[in-house]
Amino acid sequence: MTPFSHDIGADAMNAVNITANMIGNKEYIERAEKYRLMLQKQDLSVACAMSDVKGDRIERPSSPRQSHPDYYVRVVKKDDKGIVVRGAKAHITAAAYCNEILVVPCHAMEEEDKDYAVAFAVPADTRGVVQVCHPITSHRSKSDFPVDIPVRNHTDSLIIFDDVFVPWDRVFLCGEWKFAMPLVYNFAYLHRHTAASYRIPSVEAMLGMAAAMAEYNGIKKVPHVREQITDLVIYANTLKSLARASCIDFATHGGIPIPNPVLTNMAKYHFASNFHNNMKLVQDIAGGLLVTAPTFKDFENPEIGDFIKKYLGGKKGISAEARLRMFQLMRRMMTVENEVVAVHAEGSLQSQRLMIYFESLADQAQYQKNVEYAAGIKR
Amino acid sequence: MTPFSHDIGADAMNAVNITANMIGNKEYIERAEKYRLMLQKQDLSVACAMSDVKGDRIERPSSPRQSHPDYYVRVVKKDDKGIVVRGAKAHITAAAYCNEILVVPCHAMEEEDKDYAVAFAVPADTRGVVQVCHPITSHRSKSDFPVDIPVRNHTDSLIIFDDVFVPWDRVFLCGEWKFAMPLVYNFAYLHRHTAASYRIPSVEAMLGMAAAMAEYNGIKKVPHVREQITDLVIYANTLKSLARASCIDFATHGGIPIPNPVLTNMAKYHFASNFHNNMKLVQDIAGGLLVTAPTFKDFENPEIGDFIKKYLGGKKGISAEARLRMFQLMRRMMTVENEVVAVHAEGSLQSQRLMIYFESLADQAQYQKNVEYAAGIKR
Amino acid sequence: MTPFSHDIGADAMNAVNITANMIGNKEYIERAEKYRLMLQKQDLSVACAMSDVKGDRIERPSSPRQSHPDYYVRVVKKDDKGIVVRGAKAHITAAAYCNEILVVPCHAMEEEDKDYAVAFAVPADTRGVVQVCHPITSHRSKSDFPVDIPVRNHTDSLIIFDDVFVPWDRVFLCGEWKFAMPLVYNFAYLHRHTAASYRIPSVEAMLGMAAAMAEYNGIKKVPHVREQITDLVIYANTLKSLARASCIDFATHGGIPIPNPVLTNMAKYHFASNFHNNMKLVQDIAGGLLVTAPTFKDFENPEIGDFIKKYLGGKKGISAEARLRMFQLMRRMMTVENEVVAVHAEGSLQSQRLMIYFESLADQAQYQKNVEYAAGIKR
Amino acid sequence: MTPFSHDIGADAMNAVNITANMIGNKEYIERAEKYRLMLQKQDLSVACAMSDVKGDRIERPSSPRQSHPDYYVRVVKKDDKGIVVRGAKAHITAAAYCNEILVVPCHAMEEEDKDYAVAFAVPADTRGVVQVCHPITSHRSKSDFPVDIPVRNHTDSLIIFDDVFVPWDRVFLCGEWKFAMPLVYNFAYLHRHTAASYRIPSVEAMLGMAAAMAEYNGIKKVPHVREQITDLVIYANTLKSLARASCIDFATHGGIPIPNPVLTNMAKYHFASNFHNNMKLVQDIAGGLLVTAPTFKDFENPEIGDFIKKYLGGKKGISAEARLRMFQLMRRMMTVENEVVAVHAEGSLQSQRLMIYFESLADQAQYQKNVEYAAGIKR
Repeated sequence: MTPFSHDIGADAMNAVNITANMIGNKEYIERAEKYRLMLQKQDLSVACAMSDVKGDRIERPSSPRQSHPDYYVRVVKKDDKGIVVRGAKAHITAAAYCNEILVVPCHAMEEEDKDYAVAFAVPADTRGVVQVCHPITSHRSKSDFPVDIPVRNHTDSLIIFDDVFVPWDRVFLCGEWKFAMPLVYNFAYLHRHTAASYRIPSVEAMLGMAAAMAEYNGIKKVPHVREQITDLVIYANTLKSLARASCIDFATHGGIPIPNPVLTNMAKYHFASNFHNNMKLVQDIAGGLLVTAPTFKDFENPEIGDFIKKYLGGKKGISAEARLRMFQLMRRMMTVENEVVAVHAEGSLQSQRLMIYFESLADQAQYQKNVEYAAGIKR
Repeated sequence: MTPFSHDIGADAMNAVNITANMIGNKEYIERAEKYRLMLQKQDLSVACAMSDVKGDRIERPSSPRQSHPDYYVRVVKKDDKGIVVRGAKAHITAAAYCNEILVVPCHAMEEEDKDYAVAFAVPADTRGVVQVCHPITSHRSKSDFPVDIPVRNHTDSLIIFDDVFVPWDRVFLCGEWKFAMPLVYNFAYLHRHTAASYRIPSVEAMLGMAAAMAEYNGIKKVPHVREQITDLVIYANTLKSLARASCIDFATHGGIPIPNPVLTNMAKYHFASNFHNNMKLVQDIAGGLLVTAPTFKDFENPEIGDFIKKYLGGKKGISAEARLRMFQLMRRMMTVENEVVAVHAEGSLQSQRLMIYFESLADQAQYQKNVEYAAGIKR
Repeated sequence: MTPFSHDIGADAMNAVNITANMIGNKEYIERAEKYRLMLQKQDLSVACAMSDVKGDRIERPSSPRQSHPDYYVRVVKKDDKGIVVRGAKAHITAAAYCNEILVVPCHAMEEEDKDYAVAFAVPADTRGVVQVCHPITSHRSKSDFPVDIPVRNHTDSLIIFDDVFVPWDRVFLCGEWKFAMPLVYNFAYLHRHTAASYRIPSVEAMLGMAAAMAEYNGIKKVPHVREQITDLVIYANTLKSLARASCIDFATHGGIPIPNPVLTNMAKYHFASNFHNNMKLVQDIAGGLLVTAPTFKDFENPEIGDFIKKYLGGKKGISAEARLRMFQLMRRMMTVENEVVAVHAEGSLQSQRLMIYFESLADQAQYQKNVEYAAGIKR
Repeated sequence: MTPFSHDIGADAMNAVNITANMIGNKEYIERAEKYRLMLQKQDLSVACAMSDVKGDRIERPSSPRQSHPDYYVRVVKKDDKGIVVRGAKAHITAAAYCNEILVVPCHAMEEEDKDYAVAFAVPADTRGVVQVCHPITSHRSKSDFPVDIPVRNHTDSLIIFDDVFVPWDRVFLCGEWKFAMPLVYNFAYLHRHTAASYRIPSVEAMLGMAAAMAEYNGIKKVPHVREQITDLVIYANTLKSLARASCIDFATHGGIPIPNPVLTNMAKYHFASNFHNNMKLVQDIAGGLLVTAPTFKDFENPEIGDFIKKYLGGKKGISAEARLRMFQLMRRMMTVENEVVAVHAEGSLQSQRLMIYFESLADQAQYQKNVEYAAGIKR
């Protein structure tokens, strides 16, 4: 049971509650509340399954131009006991070791897509639920320097819903296609704030690595290195300021406070759109040895270990071991997995930009009025 | 008496108070307090004169490699009645119509520069004080569309102190060279926050102009125009979030609260370093007519006015007059004066970056410790 | 007769020739050739009138959602002698002092717009042709330092075609709507190369100003100033390399060589999209005095001139006059007019990006095939 | 024998020749020529060993503030037969499978460093030469889709010179400290052009991957995807144009043509400084499945393979296999190794910027003269 899965599940659970309140459907409100209490009581962890596999992304779920109608999870049968769902959800973090799976739609629906407007929860071991996980990439090998702190990495699942039965008391949306978008949006407001917040330590770590390597290599006073560290300081503190601002200027949806819609998207977008460039700064300060460094096995090898200790030291007082250990930590962080997670987890860059645009329309209109007044324009 | 001059004067007055407290010099504390009360009582406006003319910027004030020793304001005589000062201060906003001039140093001093470590106040009409103003660039002409709202632009003065006598009760620093830097820094913390805050309306105006022109030209739904407006929304809201964050995480110097040293510099830097690029976005949306538009005189001319009204309309419902008036407002804002003020007022870009770097050193050290622990490095 | 107008006119004349060849219309080919020979013989200068006033930019010329059908120049009458045209063209550089006006469409047409697919030439003083010019902004005043080199600035005209008759032998396109796009594109290929080339001296001037001010202010060895100058060097040399590359990899359209379609757009786009940011670098190096400097009148004023000469000197050996003259030159270059010309002359930023995308489709397909082969994908 | 090692060796060999000519030392010229002919005749591959391990990077090789004097390769003994060298060179690509190692200094030297101003060649199996290689990171696993094309990755060696004897006829620089810099610079001119050129195919591959995934995912017409592909087109074509421009405007050093010093550095810098950001664009288009995709083993697994084939298809006609294979190819390219190689191979970003600045000083001076003339400044 990981804290991450809790966060995602909690954001989805809150979005389900808000949406039930917005619909004003008493039954949904009660089911959601009952489900929440059950989770609390039994201390269960919940994975949120959102991203459909999508097929042709420009086509709607129900479009005949899709190869088949199952690229988005949908209701294929309904009776008085419950519903049967079919489809697949991709890259569901931590689902392999969570107790429950909470399923919500991943984008707005139109009337013809109403079978796809469905939200529900099932225990992870429900019949018909199949998980395909990708290998956990620990980025640790036997030739690594031993470190006391355990490395914990998630795996993500492709979850197939192969005609899974869901009883009515676990169904939170079913056909109300107009509310697919509010459900998605309310999840996004909450989850992008979660994202912006949990990334703060990793951005601080990037700055810490840059500061460490600048010291180890003796280049702390080199002007262009200071500029790079300054850029990392700006990156980290802008993230913190935006994440906090999104709490201070909160909004209230369905009676529940949510982070400021514009600012929570800006915080996540700031982190994601600048991640690669800041990674570059850290790599530049570290030097090429970051990827050409000998392994711990070489370091321990009596024939060559002493050469390594002599030649790979840094500034006076900085051992080869310190540098090699720092490189090892950096390589673990600098993976394509982390880069893609930065870009795509909690929605792609463009999904944030779209929300920033649309959520700021009222502000835009006000500022336009102001300049029209100043220009002497009567409308 | 303008609100702007008040702000600069107030920031300088507070910096003088903080520094007096830091020095712990009872006399300075009393003089500063007495001067402040006099200003309040008589309701006087104060210009702050900070930037020296500097000569060779890489040389210290007292360097023999400067062409002469007066490139920075300095004490040339001292007796029991007061001091005599010589030198010049450049681009002092609003000094031409303020009652008082409060003079502070503009950078850190070393021991040999101690005659230059001087702060004092004089009435603007003191003997030996000479002001050279540059023309007020109203960017209004007789061919402009008439607008009810008056345009107010400042002028800046080059102020020469041609051996000016200052009585002791108006001297706030005189030779304590180690405190030149704290005085400069405390002014900068305060004044960069002032700067970041008073720029918010002009950034909102940029966004408003972009929104207006996108509507007038009928291109509100064009994807790349939306992207540009989204960038302007991000620009404005990042400025607001940083300006506010610098208040929330305030520090306390000499018993007086000041904005967070890292964040107040980041807020000003964000505004200044991105100003030109955002101006470009507004110009791109406006179109070339922004600078090739006919004048109000042409508009009124009976021979050609009807052609202009017919041909320069925008989207249905948007008159030629509305567009021409908006262009006129935009041209007034898009001047080299405004660009240079963005870059240089309250200190150049690099002065902010340096403070961001140095003020974040404690954070950097903490993050370095964290990653060293995670890497298993023992120091 | 200015060289600029020649360039634009020549690019348009060549585009007319290429398009006539592509249509294969013998009459058009002969008329264009005859017109060209007449221009040569009589040594006439030609302005090219391209940008229509457009109204609602998202609507087609013939759209009923436009306020009226004349937002794009169109044929309103046709008989055996010629055609009658109506409409207006905006920001036509140098038209006020050219002999001839060569009119071409400004974007692709569809069948219902066929009356708007028209290209023709008229003498500038033809009955019904009305020009509205905006004031020539010389940015010179009586308080300026005198400079021997004359300042030459263009004005741009709004040209109204108030039912102008054009005889057939001056008509080069009339209704062949499918060829509006090739005419526009071929003009763009040629004219963006012209643009990229004539901007090289102004970009060199920006670099020269930065180098001069860095020397005058004594900051030539300051690291962040070197970085800014390095960025200016990269800006200038990338422009030159792209402009040249677009000649080397030329294409041939209608039997006439044209610059490489992708590279000519990239060259112009590089210049335009980075102009504001590089202007910022120059302003940062110059310092605030760039806009707060006293005038030549103050400089000559016997009462204060000596103060100015003493206090506004730079590094040893650099007079106040040298600095004030350089600031004056810089202010003349740093105008909203120049910024908007950078962005909009020869087409807006997005028009270049669209051509870069579409003209590179064949390359994109080839690179896709290569990676599919490397991935073992059989299609 | 790899083509890569040939390139590096050839660039170093040419730099040795040029420098011998510049010194005008007949013996060096003859030795270099003899060595070259021997390589040709015996068809030997040569690795170039340049980067020293450096210790404290801000200190000179001979500085007493270094932990020991061996952080840079140096001559520790000299007699009439030859020299004995000690030190270590880091990240020497392909040295593990080359015949010869050609050693050159890695930065400028001062007089006190003259023992470090040494260039020489030794067979790879010379006594005292020890290589420590890092594991070849093939990024292939047993769970991968099989691909016919073999994957070839280099390893890099840390090469220790443990008091290695070098006979005089293989010594090309020994104590001429003033020529360490020309040797380094001439190698850099040549090798950065090599670098810029061999990166063209990988940049084309990035563009190809983006084009492929945009098609597979059905998002080819989505505006922001087109913008990203346009940015990739600009990235690739700017690299090509700069690489070519550096050949056209070549210089001649020591009688041998070399790429244009400013442009060859700009070409490499353009590739390196924009690599991470362009990688981000490709990852954004690909989607999260890039890192969460099931493996080939899952694909072949009879229990779940059909689910994968059904659900991970793309646009109609694009199989799950095609997408999974493309993701696999992308992951192989998107490694921290490739990122660090982009930044550090052929010198760090700042080493290119410094050369761009210094090599353009003559141009800067000329442009300064031009604007001084235009400003009416007499010097």
